[in-house]
Amino acid sequence: MKKIFDVILAYNEPEAETFLEELRGKKPLFVCAIGTTETAKIPGISAAGKYPELTDYTPPADVELLLLGRCKCIPGVPVTPEGIPTPALITMSALKLADIPVLVASGGLKVKPHIPFLDLGGKPGEDIRTGKAVENIEEVIQRARIAGENLAKVADYLVIGESIPGGTTTALGVLLAIGIDARGKVSSSMSGNPHELKIRIVEAGLNASGEKFGSLAGDPIKAISCVGDPMIPAFAGMVLGAASRVPVLIAGGTQMGAIVAVLKALNQNVLDNIAIGTTRWIIEDKTSDLKGIIDQIADVPVLAADLDFNRSKIEGLKAYEEGFVKEGVGAGGAAIAAMTKSEGSITKETLLEEIERNYELLVESK
Amino acid sequence: MKKIFDVILAYNEPEAETFLEELRGKKPLFVCAIGTTETAKIPGISAAGKYPELTDYTPPADVELLLLGRCKCIPGVPVTPEGIPTPALITMSALKLADIPVLVASGGLKVKPHIPFLDLGGKPGEDIRTGKAVENIEEVIQRARIAGENLAKVADYLVIGESIPGGTTTALGVLLAIGIDARGKVSSSMSGNPHELKIRIVEAGLNASGEKFGSLAGDPIKAISCVGDPMIPAFAGMVLGAASRVPVLIAGGTQMGAIVAVLKALNQNVLDNIAIGTTRWIIEDKTSDLKGIIDQIADVPVLAADLDFNRSKIEGLKAYEEGFVKEGVGAGGAAIAAMTKSEGSITKETLLEEIERNYELLVESK
Repeated sequence: MKKIFDVILAYNEPEAETFLEELRGKKPLFVCAIGTTETAKIPGISAAGKYPELTDYTPPADVELLLLGRCKCIPGVPVTPEGIPTPALITMSALKLADIPVLVASGGLKVKPHIPFLDLGGKPGEDIRTGKAVENIEEVIQRARIAGENLAKVADYLVIGESIPGGTTTALGVLLAIGIDARGKVSSSMSGNPHELKIRIVEAGLNASGEKFGSLAGDPIKAISCVGDPMIPAFAGMVLGAASRVPVLIAGGTQMGAIVAVLKALNQNVLDNIAIGTTRWIIEDKTSDLKGIIDQIADVPVLAADLDFNRSKIEGLKAYEEGFVKEGVGAGGAAIAAMTKSEGSITKETLLEEIERNYELLVESK
Repeated sequence: MKKIFDVILAYNEPEAETFLEELRGKKPLFVCAIGTTETAKIPGISAAGKYPELTDYTPPADVELLLLGRCKCIPGVPVTPEGIPTPALITMSALKLADIPVLVASGGLKVKPHIPFLDLGGKPGEDIRTGKAVENIEEVIQRARIAGENLAKVADYLVIGESIPGGTTTALGVLLAIGIDARGKVSSSMSGNPHELKIRIVEAGLNASGEKFGSLAGDPIKAISCVGDPMIPAFAGMVLGAASRVPVLIAGGTQMGAIVAVLKALNQNVLDNIAIGTTRWIIEDKTSDLKGIIDQIADVPVLAADLDFNRSKIEGLKAYEEGFVKEGVGAGGAAIAAMTKSEGSITKETLLEEIERNYELLVESK
């Protein structure tokens, strides 16, 4: 696949190239949409935290890392049960190298981060098996839209990432409710992807809410409210507000399928001014299928940061090459933005050096 | 006094001119720092609300007006007991005309606005007569500083305004505690300025906290915590974060004296990159003395929007010429930014037309 800088033009290559060229040398703002849910605490669902209850701390810790260079609400940094560090380490390193500013927007949190964050009026999400996952979605979308409109007046473009444990399961919920067959296609932060478990949880949620595959095709708000998560309205609302004015790189893995599906249902026009920014690990992942999801929704270009941790001296980073973590906290999009803002002077090698330096500072010294 | 566009170079004219020329044609971000206090509810202190308890609603209503073009938490717009509309109407009209983006930062609120706002971890302020006015100041300053640093990476410059009822009394508290003799010098939103009442309240607070005039000259954090308000750390922290990178127009009347005094004590260097932006009504006010406050602190340039409501057909606006309201919600700074961004194509006349149009939409039709 063709590359510009260390960015792979993964799908819809001509549009991806046009999109990337438009960003060259421009000044982005990185926004991280966060939320927490009870869904993430279902055993076996999320690796974003050493054990299920800790998932409430992962998004606030991730954004503390982005804004403070260290976490405050937990010691060290968020890790998987195997001790593999959060992708926020990649995001933070990329943003720091390229001097890219960050804002955080909360869709609904149990634990508040010790940094300034945009309160969008949302609440933490419930367990989707109740069929009543998220409240107050229209208000959150409306507030996020206003934030996006205003931020688009100062930044040349936005990169929007997310941190929400269990997010691929709730994304699967929204996708199935809308009628996108994402079964067996969503990614996982674990190396073994528990597709059957995720499908069972989503089906329980759809049953509990009296819905089924595709029954909410015309009602993405209801799809989120039944089986989604509070990050989705925050994220989608910001894109709705910003994309009429500036390009928006939506940064994440298969969860971006749910975002694109929601955007398509709410305002098709914004799809012309967005691209997905992800990592090489996502587009090479054999246990998920981002392209297979996106192809069912819209011709959105996909860019992937050609990150390569094979030669890292740090085991926790090499694990990314074995299928762990892969993406999150807008890591791929932040890397793409850093490479593009610096017009290629930030490479995958210089980025890895910075990530290793930060790893040593934050993980080994804790 | 010399004018550029419809902006008066009010004090420190050469520095004021240099500062304004640096902003010409550039793209600002307007940030509104808000908070509420129990001090504002002392009878006779604040006109920012029809009656004392309503002051909790004034700041959220003001920022809703800025971001939504209408208030949500109250009907109509905030008015004084005489029915004179909030200066947020000026701010909103200026920002709209010049397409200037807005963010809101909360230092501590009783009532939350229905718009996205930066949560800085603060709480509403108590009655300063307790001598224990504000909590958690260092955390709020630190979070606001981070926000300011990040926003300064996207905007060419910041304009920071405020909305906090009773704010001149708490500003007087901080000024006296630091040792700036502002007795009889702070402004008022009322036409008769209740100086004696304000001084009595501040002295009660100083007594309760075991402090006196000038005893906290070296400890501005303690000055705020004893007799200040939660807007001040939010506002000052953002300036501290932003002013090392971009110019900051601090927008307000005599309350800016307290901000400058706090900044001087925390980091003198930022004073080189700020100016006060206010209104003609403040610099011509016979019942207050902005210059007399600032002269005791630092050579900060002062710019004043030459707003003129004498010929307005609307009584509620003409009242501004009789000494009511005068300033607030960054009205003067927003007008200056609009005139400067448009390089003079927005004038006091076109701005008044827009304000009258919005007045009719919002006040008369409610």
